[in-house]
Amino acid sequence: MEGEVVLLDFWPSMFGMRTRIALAEKQIKYEYREEDLRNKSALLLQMNPVHKKIPVLIHNGKPICESLIQVQYIDEVWNDRAPLLPPNPYQRATARFWADFVDKKIYDLGAKVWRTKGEEQEAAKKEFIECLKLLEGQLGDNPYFGGKDFGFVDVALVPFYCWFYTYEKFGSFSIEAECPKLIAWAKRCMQKESVAKSLADQEKIYDFVLQLKKALGIE
Amino acid sequence: MEGEVVLLDFWPSMFGMRTRIALAEKQIKYEYREEDLRNKSALLLQMNPVHKKIPVLIHNGKPICESLIQVQYIDEVWNDRAPLLPPNPYQRATARFWADFVDKKIYDLGAKVWRTKGEEQEAAKKEFIECLKLLEGQLGDNPYFGGKDFGFVDVALVPFYCWFYTYEKFGSFSIEAECPKLIAWAKRCMQKESVAKSLADQEKIYDFVLQLKKALGIE
Repeated sequence: MEGEVVLLDFWPSMFGMRTRIALAEKQIKYEYREEDLRNKSALLLQMNPVHKKIPVLIHNGKPICESLIQVQYIDEVWNDRAPLLPPNPYQRATARFWADFVDKKIYDLGAKVWRTKGEEQEAAKKEFIECLKLLEGQLGDNPYFGGKDFGFVDVALVPFYCWFYTYEKFGSFSIEAECPKLIAWAKRCMQKESVAKSLADQEKIYDFVLQLKKALGIE
Repeated sequence: MEGEVVLLDFWPSMFGMRTRIALAEKQIKYEYREEDLRNKSALLLQMNPVHKKIPVLIHNGKPICESLIQVQYIDEVWNDRAPLLPPNPYQRATARFWADFVDKKIYDLGAKVWRTKGEEQEAAKKEFIECLKLLEGQLGDNPYFGGKDFGFVDVALVPFYCWFYTYEKFGSFSIEAECPKLIAWAKRCMQKESVAKSLADQEKIYDFVLQLKKALGIE
């Protein structure tokens, strides 16, 4: 029925977590294969020769690359349960817009917060919070971004929540103090088993980034 | 039936051209409003407060931003004619992947070709051609990226064709010499009225970039 589903992934990846959440929402059994990004598998290079990046979703031997494209694919193939994109074209466009906003802004700004210092870091923190406030405004008083049900934008954004601790520790700031409604939303998402089991432990992410900074020669 | 459709656009924009092509493919009548990007209209700032960029598609008063999201919206709303995305989820994912590849690579590399000189320009030209060759490989011997019918990846990529002359003049190279099949594909697309009437004149683009370089103080 489901066919053979394999996910090539790397545990701290917020992009991989999106696909894990979508598969969990649809209750799809799959084989998880951890990649060593310093020594990528022949399968990864074969399945994503263009970008050579995880996550790669392999369904019946055929690769699907790029996390938001994977989430849409999963939603379209298993369309009989737990819809992620809304049915209405305007609401779909709105969901795609905010997921794209997360891709264009949040990852790079978050990375600048832990990688840089001084003025560069301050500027990154400021823009990072501005972007989270825009997202918080879009959420409004809804439980989820799509309204009453967990959906596409929630899947796109919530993996960053387990990185917030790392951004806060390196950036010496509190995201909750600035965006309390967004944190309440993230905690609401974490009540869902699909999210809780897909996100990495925030302390492990912090340790990973500490090691990564040493390896990169960043103090 | 169609409702009121307005497009806020700027004539040399390859992103705006995508939306023009999609609207033409669907034979939608719309009001085209040219924006002055040095003096953006109140309507543009109101309709796209997040990015403040063209193109903005306004359908019955509601904005849709980001060109590929607009093309998908147009395809979903007017789904009774000229389909742009294929029906099969795997083919849809493949189309989204290559359109995303165009977004991630072609615009920035093309801009580097006309904006830079020396080693930086040579590196940009090399990567630009490599990316076009990947696209040419994906096209294969098909008339269009989706196979026998004009579709999503064609809409995403073909607007760059009217910029090729500018890249070639400033980069002193021939794209056709490197990617003859891709140029044959572009000329095939230009046989379609929806494409021919949506793309700008290549000499006008070149004059526009000459003026832009002067204004930016780039020789």
